[in-house]
Amino acid sequence: MAYTAKYISREALADIVFADAPAQRRAAAFAEASRINCLYMIQNAGSGHIGTSFSSLEIMSWLHMEEMDENDFFFSSKGHDAPALYTVLLGLGRLPFEKLHQLRRLGGLPGHPDVGTECMVTNTGSLGMGIAKARGMIKARRLDGRPGRAFVLLGDGELEEGQIWESLQPTANGEYSELTVIVDHNKIQSDTWVSDTSDLGDLETKFRAFGWEVVRCDGNDVDALSGALAYLRGVEARPKMLIADTIKGRGVSFMERFDAEATGGLYAYHSGAVSPEVYAKALAELTANLTTACAEAGIPMPAFTEAEITPATPLENPQKLVAAYGRKLLELGGEREDMVVLDADLVLDCGLLGFRDAFPDRFVECGIAEQDMVSMAGGLALSGKLPLVHSFGCFLTTRPGEQIFNNATEKTKIIYAGSLVGILPGGPGHSHQSVRDIALMSCVPGMTCVEPCCEAETEMALEWAVQANPGSTYIRLVSIPCPKSFELPAGYRLTPGKGAVLREGKADAPLVFAYGPVLTEQACRAADQLAAQGIDATVVNLPWLSGVDEQWLREIVGTRDNVLTLDNHLLKGGQGEMLAATAARLGLGARFHCLGLTGKPACGRNDEVLAHHGLDANGIAGRVRAIVA
Amino acid sequence: MAYTAKYISREALADIVFADAPAQRRAAAFAEASRINCLYMIQNAGSGHIGTSFSSLEIMSWLHMEEMDENDFFFSSKGHDAPALYTVLLGLGRLPFEKLHQLRRLGGLPGHPDVGTECMVTNTGSLGMGIAKARGMIKARRLDGRPGRAFVLLGDGELEEGQIWESLQPTANGEYSELTVIVDHNKIQSDTWVSDTSDLGDLETKFRAFGWEVVRCDGNDVDALSGALAYLRGVEARPKMLIADTIKGRGVSFMERFDAEATGGLYAYHSGAVSPEVYAKALAELTANLTTACAEAGIPMPAFTEAEITPATPLENPQKLVAAYGRKLLELGGEREDMVVLDADLVLDCGLLGFRDAFPDRFVECGIAEQDMVSMAGGLALSGKLPLVHSFGCFLTTRPGEQIFNNATEKTKIIYAGSLVGILPGGPGHSHQSVRDIALMSCVPGMTCVEPCCEAETEMALEWAVQANPGSTYIRLVSIPCPKSFELPAGYRLTPGKGAVLREGKADAPLVFAYGPVLTEQACRAADQLAAQGIDATVVNLPWLSGVDEQWLREIVGTRDNVLTLDNHLLKGGQGEMLAATAARLGLGARFHCLGLTGKPACGRNDEVLAHHGLDANGIAGRVRAIVA
Repeated sequence: MAYTAKYISREALADIVFADAPAQRRAAAFAEASRINCLYMIQNAGSGHIGTSFSSLEIMSWLHMEEMDENDFFFSSKGHDAPALYTVLLGLGRLPFEKLHQLRRLGGLPGHPDVGTECMVTNTGSLGMGIAKARGMIKARRLDGRPGRAFVLLGDGELEEGQIWESLQPTANGEYSELTVIVDHNKIQSDTWVSDTSDLGDLETKFRAFGWEVVRCDGNDVDALSGALAYLRGVEARPKMLIADTIKGRGVSFMERFDAEATGGLYAYHSGAVSPEVYAKALAELTANLTTACAEAGIPMPAFTEAEITPATPLENPQKLVAAYGRKLLELGGEREDMVVLDADLVLDCGLLGFRDAFPDRFVECGIAEQDMVSMAGGLALSGKLPLVHSFGCFLTTRPGEQIFNNATEKTKIIYAGSLVGILPGGPGHSHQSVRDIALMSCVPGMTCVEPCCEAETEMALEWAVQANPGSTYIRLVSIPCPKSFELPAGYRLTPGKGAVLREGKADAPLVFAYGPVLTEQACRAADQLAAQGIDATVVNLPWLSGVDEQWLREIVGTRDNVLTLDNHLLKGGQGEMLAATAARLGLGARFHCLGLTGKPACGRNDEVLAHHGLDANGIAGRVRAIVA
Repeated sequence: MAYTAKYISREALADIVFADAPAQRRAAAFAEASRINCLYMIQNAGSGHIGTSFSSLEIMSWLHMEEMDENDFFFSSKGHDAPALYTVLLGLGRLPFEKLHQLRRLGGLPGHPDVGTECMVTNTGSLGMGIAKARGMIKARRLDGRPGRAFVLLGDGELEEGQIWESLQPTANGEYSELTVIVDHNKIQSDTWVSDTSDLGDLETKFRAFGWEVVRCDGNDVDALSGALAYLRGVEARPKMLIADTIKGRGVSFMERFDAEATGGLYAYHSGAVSPEVYAKALAELTANLTTACAEAGIPMPAFTEAEITPATPLENPQKLVAAYGRKLLELGGEREDMVVLDADLVLDCGLLGFRDAFPDRFVECGIAEQDMVSMAGGLALSGKLPLVHSFGCFLTTRPGEQIFNNATEKTKIIYAGSLVGILPGGPGHSHQSVRDIALMSCVPGMTCVEPCCEAETEMALEWAVQANPGSTYIRLVSIPCPKSFELPAGYRLTPGKGAVLREGKADAPLVFAYGPVLTEQACRAADQLAAQGIDATVVNLPWLSGVDEQWLREIVGTRDNVLTLDNHLLKGGQGEMLAATAARLGLGARFHCLGLTGKPACGRNDEVLAHHGLDANGIAGRVRAIVA
């Protein structure tokens, strides 16, 4: 169902940028115009972060139009406001304007900033790193005797990350007055109000206690912003913090309002595109705002350009593993009073709403504080509880790596459930594509790693982890809705170390190992394609990632000459490497072929990314044909 | 050269513990007596942390003797003051007294706390986790309706870790008044003054800004301590912070004094036993202190028990890889002005003194802030510098795991040098034994991992990483002085992916892969032992951990039926798994046998630990014999 969207062309924007108007009025109008382009980009991509992009547009506009000179640089540490940054840079002619239509596409503008894109000075999207990275950049300039100021934008939810506070004092001690940090203090983080998630306390007092110069202003008011920044320019010998009070979803009345009670506590416009109807309403409001801003600046209203947007067709009856996980979690929570669920500001994305509402005492919202969450889980486990720890796989298995190991040395039982794993969705980019987590979790002593391929197996995996496994488990969950054309064998039961044949081939054709909904589906499609070409490959779903039943492996490989493994992960440390190494230890004669990532994952539409890495059905079938040949 | 040491027996200590004296005077005398036993333990073990143990003894004594009841619990988050804690618990009869003689021995008292030991409530030694773990324990008690207060001791250097600050606000938000945190504020961290390493600023203001109740007192004065804790008992609805101003090395005049200039800036009594002569002087002072304390308490001076201590015989001309690294670093630093060295409070242990003193502008002391350090390195690399990042392998590769990946996605060049890798020294225990670092670093896109086997290869590895490798490198350095009975081939040059034959065996005997000074030495000794028994095993030193030259592997394996790999690391993710998987992909016929760790590393004397894990020459030779049989 295509619909018409609107954006403002480079030329029409130039009439604002170069208008003979007071700088503040010009920037305010530019920010309003940019909201229209920003929303277009997100709608065209089908995903992206509206709320935080809209809250930051006056800040980004003023910095790039007036505050910074050619030696200065800006980046956003939170990174998910990339659509706003791109929009500003496109509008100022610093990015090729055709990229307006390429958000989250392969070769286009990544979902989070990447230095491969013009004007991007560092990769962000992983939270909390901005102050330290900027300090490194400034230190380099000091060593070279080069001038240059850094402007770094933080999110307020991001302030829950310990690294922020780790960086504050050394930056003050080093008198990094070249650095101005701006907090886009829009008061709402991924799920809900910051104050309800993990209240930040008195930010001004805190930052001052760490030796920073602190000012505060309305961050959507260009006059206030420009005044605050002008004041900070004169401050010497200490780093500078501007707390910019902003409004999430700024510019659209229904995005600005957040009635936590009415929405089940969840802010609706953190991430994702909106429906065509909602888009139309938002555009009308943004247009009115721009009209006002142009009038105040004495600039003619710019012309709009129309463009067709065709939203992706939703899958019919897709598999939703996270939802299945959530249902089972709720069920088990009723049976086992020792279960305590911990979350890091992803209550919806991790499937925890049901448990949270049913067992509020046993639900701990930790905020974006993965190290704190994992160590708290360790304490709970030492005191007789069964903690279940949640975040996206890319954060859960990396940020608290030492804490997970520490817990493991205590030989307690903890369940880690990482969602958004693997290379899909491809839109957010490498900060959110969890492609090292199998490697990281497999080498934790006593940890069993499992990735289910469908809703049914997800429920089995959680049931097994809670009720059967005496040790700790890492459950790896793909988050995207997935098509499923395969069936698990009748009466299938999850059995440690063993898998199930989904496509029964012949012994003279390769054996293909897959796991998870993405690869299992693609492998089965490849097998069907190959069968039509006379190659009868066998496809096995093996959900176990950290080890395999050796006898079962010996039997399933049998006399086959060739085995193909598939990894929705880097080859290094993935299931394929584990299986190949096991085969070499067992002295199986088969030759192993391993498909998976060899470097950083690509950003793009799901089909683009899957094909790019050779992990779609065509790529898999092609590899099998090459093996057979 | 054995010498006589002294300790105070359980019975003699009981006379203090149960003396009819004011509680404060009794605790003060007990603390002084405990210093004598603590020093004995460390001298007997040959290693341990004197300074921080001595600074904390009044705190630990008062808590355990008077403040806590049976529902309360204590642990030290810094953990390296374990000798002090053990001493107190031994003296109070809560640990079997014979363990006084078993510090850092296999089956004895680990170098850092482990829940396998009586009274230890959590594993520490990895810094920064204490507040979060305690909160988990209290949460569990709240859920169970059980009473219980937590007392957690932090180090002041530990306050540089971001996780501390990440935990502070949620703990206040949850009104965890059951928790009292005590900072053993002895002002000196691993290397030198905290204020010179990474000044903490105004701690009281900071903690108050995070919503904590804060008091401060002399932490070596039992009257002051007991008063402060009595006050905190009455505080409700907020967690409590006691900043205890203590003196590192308290009780021994020359350990209390720290003249940074005279010592090259390094505090001498952070870790390690002292010479018999220094021990004698320290004991004399501690005895005098105890005499005074007993007199003030009206308690008779306890009797001392004598024990012989035989220090380990130092190796003749051992290989010191970290020193070699430091020499080469200094040399290269003179050639390459883009090199910037970053350290996390381990300037001596990472071999950085020479570079620091020669190029102070290009040396950045980050304090115990590994995430901050790694992201700062990322910023430096983006701005044209070549950062070299240092810490112990166990911290460097785990705490900043997400930061390292983020840097890698920018495709800059950074050198990470982790020392203290592998299972030796065995004394500090699992918090310090880096046995996952190969797995963690191998799966970082673009990272090459290398572990040199001797001083010469260390210099080659650094030279290669700086001058030849276009990408990033992880250099894995064993820190203990190592014997070396093997020789690299004449004219040996480090060649990516390839190794060198150190013992030329026969094709009908197994091929043994080793790397690093510990395993290479043990493998060569095993080969010599086996040769005498008619088994001519080949030993290859392969320093490359993350990949291997496939053609070279094919040739060196040749027609051999059996290959034995050795890992000073967990089997999972180690070199052996990489080699076995490569062999399976190449279709080599050989069967792979892999020796390495399968679970958490043991704590003990080096020879004990090596034998325990089957990685000494006897264990290796035994495995080869089993293969041949």
